[in-house]
Amino acid sequence: MERLLKRVVILGSTGSIGCQTLDVIRAYPDRFQVVGLAAGHNVDLLATQAREFRPALVACAAPERLQPLLAGASPQPAVVGLKEMATAPAVDIVVAAIVGKDGLEPTLAALESGKTVALANKEAMVMAGALLTEAAARGGGEIRPVDSEHSAIWQCLAGEDRASVSRLIITASGGALRDLPLDSLAEIGPAEALAHPTWRMGRRITIDSASLFNKGLEVIEAHWLFDIPYERIDVVLHRESIIHSMVQFVDGSIKAHLSQPDMRQPIQHALCYPDRLPLDLAPLDFVRLGSLEFGELDMERYPCLGIALAAGARGGTYPAALAAADEEAVGAFLDRGLGFIAIPRLLADTLAKHVSTPEPALDAVLEADTWGRSFALQWIKEHA
Amino acid sequence: MERLLKRVVILGSTGSIGCQTLDVIRAYPDRFQVVGLAAGHNVDLLATQAREFRPALVACAAPERLQPLLAGASPQPAVVGLKEMATAPAVDIVVAAIVGKDGLEPTLAALESGKTVALANKEAMVMAGALLTEAAARGGGEIRPVDSEHSAIWQCLAGEDRASVSRLIITASGGALRDLPLDSLAEIGPAEALAHPTWRMGRRITIDSASLFNKGLEVIEAHWLFDIPYERIDVVLHRESIIHSMVQFVDGSIKAHLSQPDMRQPIQHALCYPDRLPLDLAPLDFVRLGSLEFGELDMERYPCLGIALAAGARGGTYPAALAAADEEAVGAFLDRGLGFIAIPRLLADTLAKHVSTPEPALDAVLEADTWGRSFALQWIKEHA
Repeated sequence: MERLLKRVVILGSTGSIGCQTLDVIRAYPDRFQVVGLAAGHNVDLLATQAREFRPALVACAAPERLQPLLAGASPQPAVVGLKEMATAPAVDIVVAAIVGKDGLEPTLAALESGKTVALANKEAMVMAGALLTEAAARGGGEIRPVDSEHSAIWQCLAGEDRASVSRLIITASGGALRDLPLDSLAEIGPAEALAHPTWRMGRRITIDSASLFNKGLEVIEAHWLFDIPYERIDVVLHRESIIHSMVQFVDGSIKAHLSQPDMRQPIQHALCYPDRLPLDLAPLDFVRLGSLEFGELDMERYPCLGIALAAGARGGTYPAALAAADEEAVGAFLDRGLGFIAIPRLLADTLAKHVSTPEPALDAVLEADTWGRSFALQWIKEHA
Repeated sequence: MERLLKRVVILGSTGSIGCQTLDVIRAYPDRFQVVGLAAGHNVDLLATQAREFRPALVACAAPERLQPLLAGASPQPAVVGLKEMATAPAVDIVVAAIVGKDGLEPTLAALESGKTVALANKEAMVMAGALLTEAAARGGGEIRPVDSEHSAIWQCLAGEDRASVSRLIITASGGALRDLPLDSLAEIGPAEALAHPTWRMGRRITIDSASLFNKGLEVIEAHWLFDIPYERIDVVLHRESIIHSMVQFVDGSIKAHLSQPDMRQPIQHALCYPDRLPLDLAPLDFVRLGSLEFGELDMERYPCLGIALAAGARGGTYPAALAAADEEAVGAFLDRGLGFIAIPRLLADTLAKHVSTPEPALDAVLEADTWGRSFALQWIKEHA
């Protein structure tokens, strides 16, 4: 089995995706070796993970707080930077699970150096889809999606010629607020918006799922991952989150990927591909399910979706600026009382005011991110 | 494009599958060349087809009636036997669409001689699954399913390791009688049983769909085609016939194949594989569909399903004897007033009375077929 051992680095090991990646790895110790773990400020959990998985490398935003927690650990991991970890020679797979722009540069570096990247950081693809796909092509790296929708599409494409794809159909649960009266959206607070009906995820993505901004980002990510024009990507309401997405082919066939909503499935597939290993997911019972429902997305309920799609279609640095502004807006909604329906207003203004750079290099992408954040913070201050 | 041209023989060209195969070929004249057309007694249609597609070979049950109809046709096709047509050197693909045992021997011969067989004749697989798969292995021939359920499974298996399959889930519409009160089944006649809710097919298969005997045959066919034990093949009620079947993998993933119910899709896929060519199927509109429903099959409503599954599990010549008896029973139901609910009684008696040959050679299979027919005819006479 030695040759099957994959050496894995997890960028963002203490977040939701990072922890579930370690759950997958824990189940298959003879398949995976954790070579590096990187986190932000959650040094306690990082230290606990490092003592269990014994990586050679660790990274975090507060190394001075981490080091005492690892005193006496054997082997003693080296504290390195994200890029160094992502490009270390003894690494096969980089799990890119740092949310937002902080994950962009190490992901680019990993692809340039030929690594397989299991990409959970959709913002990286949204901000810099062209740069990432070009880096993968240049360096020989491979991008494997971890988002359940993109993993579903990837799985449906197995054994198929990409040229025979006619359409991608991305499903959306509708999020926590799908059944509230439209005129009550002005009143809802973080608790209601965080009550996702089908998925357990991090806080920001759960809010972005309530507004469907996240679905807009997923369309942009799919556009880059699968090289499909926007007009051939549909979003359909599917409340149960059982069909994770679908691919339609030129002969009228559609393939769908279904499973219980559990992120370990797409994570494990990104790590194991092309193998499939047993996973303790409860099998789907179609008789008990009874039905799978579909519906149209009400664009009035979800203005953030339309704004995100517009940013994708415009291209340039619009998606980067918009994603950055949304991160600030969601933060303000969660912590500082910004109204839920202020989020799309802020985003619409961001789109209107941004001056985009066409075919941006990394600098321009990062500048757009910075601009989007400061624009959003200023907007929030003015509208407080 | 010359190297892409596939030379095709259609055994059963005047039936439902045969005609739809010619529809597919008509749309792609630079992909396919019809080398042979074989029919039974419908010589008028065969002659019309031969004048349009100009095959080198024709076969039928009444050549003396066919030949005058082809007078002056240029080129003049040679009248040959089924086996000669199925094994002719200038043939790449044999579409095996003769219903029942008459299709068995030419299909076996085609596989022995290394042809690709697009198999629509499920009875051949039911009667002689071991013989057909062994012939394919020996001769280098390939069996591609044409039944929509098996094509769906085959398509879901593309790019996947067969060892990672945990379960096949075959969908069943429930047929024409799915919503009738159970106690009215004794009264129904051919017109009601022929009114299939979702598929337009030949008469026998439509009756077998009303009784779900056909679904039992499909399970047996799937067992042989995909080498999956019976206990890992489920049948689930799915009224819309949109999901044609599904494959579950060891990691809890399920892939499903969906399309409008139109046999041209699986036929074209069997002819074109691994390519997919455009087909004028209306795309599925999930918003208009609204939902896909699932339910449990009521085994009391469908006793023929249980009997067929029992025959499959017993193996030997049970499936051959049972399929033959069913063909006679359905014929008597359609034409001679046998009651619908007499069909399962006849089949249960067939199963009880048959003396099976384990691991049968072709002779034993054909004997079981003969026995099943004469048992059924005698039974019908006694119960008239």
